[in-house]
Amino acid sequence: MNEFDWIDRYLRPLAKSPGADRLRNDVGVLRPAGSSLIATLDTLVEGVHFLNTDPLSSVAQKLLRVNISDILCKGGVPRDALLSIAMPKSFTESDFASLCEGLKTDLDAWTIALIGGDTVRTPGPLTLSLTLTGVCLTESVIQRSGAIVGDTVYVTGVIGRGGLGLSDAQSGKEGDHVDHYRIPELPPAAIAGLIAAFATASIDVSDGLISDSGHIAGESGVSIQLDLSNVPFAEQVPDTESALMLATAGDDYQTLFTAAAEDEHRLLATAATLGVSVTAIGTVGEGHGVKLTFNGEDVALPTRTGYRH
Amino acid sequence: MNEFDWIDRYLRPLAKSPGADRLRNDVGVLRPAGSSLIATLDTLVEGVHFLNTDPLSSVAQKLLRVNISDILCKGGVPRDALLSIAMPKSFTESDFASLCEGLKTDLDAWTIALIGGDTVRTPGPLTLSLTLTGVCLTESVIQRSGAIVGDTVYVTGVIGRGGLGLSDAQSGKEGDHVDHYRIPELPPAAIAGLIAAFATASIDVSDGLISDSGHIAGESGVSIQLDLSNVPFAEQVPDTESALMLATAGDDYQTLFTAAAEDEHRLLATAATLGVSVTAIGTVGEGHGVKLTFNGEDVALPTRTGYRH
Repeated sequence: MNEFDWIDRYLRPLAKSPGADRLRNDVGVLRPAGSSLIATLDTLVEGVHFLNTDPLSSVAQKLLRVNISDILCKGGVPRDALLSIAMPKSFTESDFASLCEGLKTDLDAWTIALIGGDTVRTPGPLTLSLTLTGVCLTESVIQRSGAIVGDTVYVTGVIGRGGLGLSDAQSGKEGDHVDHYRIPELPPAAIAGLIAAFATASIDVSDGLISDSGHIAGESGVSIQLDLSNVPFAEQVPDTESALMLATAGDDYQTLFTAAAEDEHRLLATAATLGVSVTAIGTVGEGHGVKLTFNGEDVALPTRTGYRH
Repeated sequence: MNEFDWIDRYLRPLAKSPGADRLRNDVGVLRPAGSSLIATLDTLVEGVHFLNTDPLSSVAQKLLRVNISDILCKGGVPRDALLSIAMPKSFTESDFASLCEGLKTDLDAWTIALIGGDTVRTPGPLTLSLTLTGVCLTESVIQRSGAIVGDTVYVTGVIGRGGLGLSDAQSGKEGDHVDHYRIPELPPAAIAGLIAAFATASIDVSDGLISDSGHIAGESGVSIQLDLSNVPFAEQVPDTESALMLATAGDDYQTLFTAAAEDEHRLLATAATLGVSVTAIGTVGEGHGVKLTFNGEDVALPTRTGYRH
């Protein structure tokens, strides 16, 4: 069986929407949307963004989730996907089947339609690119640049699992953090509604909490003051060093956002109703850059504020 | 200067649409469309889809054009793009600048908005993926599956330049065919209007004329009879072998389509008005598969009907 049969057997059954036309057309048809359509594209390279020991079904889920994270953090609902698979020579049918199994799990879970893509051979490592569209719940998309002096800074879920998981995976351990490193746990889909209703600026935490806070500060022309004592870290942080380690590790795929201070009560009540875990971790001020405190003390910004892939 | 500065310097200036937000957001915003939005994704790998001696500006143009070809052949107008660049370790700033130069040329020529993407490092070869959206000029997209018994088969431009160009390029020659291999010459944008007005089924000729005719025949549940004597080949074909060579070579990026026989006069007149070169090369019949004649004689279908990447 050659790789074109693999597509028939494993990939085509995943492309069920009318716009996918069972992947038989040259293009996929995007489902019509009442409001703004957005799109994101992320690429994962074996040995760079995932380990060659990671199960391929989990790699497929990670690929989908890093893209879903981008859509959710903008107040959008994931919609249609196009997938590129560049397969190394050693790639087998069972590898392809495993990849498609992970894909199916999360396409189904998030009701995303796979509408097209490309499958090629490469002399290099397995390289996966996914384009994901989303429908904004607001008329215009939430930017990184909308934070206003006086806003409160919030983050969903917990911070540091990606970094802890990577180091555990590299040393051959298993456990919750490794699970999150392989298949990132995202905020629930309802985060999109919360962002659409309240956020002035937003980003997903992929480079690291401090680095991504810096992106909002930079694009918004403001400073962001984070109180590391309030950050919901994935494990106990006995000292500044351990707090900084987790705040710079990346691969969290939680949503970091700013919202008007006077909305805090209503925002937290809505989050609780929606079942979204949200914590206030800082404030937006004049100036520029990120400023840190821990247990009431100022903390110098580390040289490396995040992990860039 | 590191690769993030490269993005600032070379890539960001290409992302001028409001939806791109100068590539500062996590997502790009697709421009609203009055009718069906379609999308395609193609990946080019160094050493597989282009030669490592090809100029990088031409590789970028090829990447855009193989995707534009998919949109045009469906009766669509290209619109928004997302680009993934997986750069090998040896990739320099001047390589990046050259890639962006080719990109700019064709983004401008086709008024395509670059709205997002991803830039990563790879231990493997340069790997480029482009997602391109398009707006259909018809209410629903033209499929491969719409050919009807009695239809006429047409092709735009000339056939065989991609194959001739590849073999010339591999033996170090230069010339028109090599130029087309590196930067495929596409039918004019007006082909989208012609397809929208007349086509019952369509595909772009990327695998090879015979192979792609077979895709239409297979998806439509019909047979396609091609008269190779009528095919506008890129060079004189003295015998069946040379005709078959050019009809199976691929990388032509012309549009192959079927239309009702009674529309032939009106179709050719419209094509002439639009400045689109179109030739009738066959007919749609009962049965299945592709049947060939050359100078009035039946020709056996070659074992290899096209070139699959």
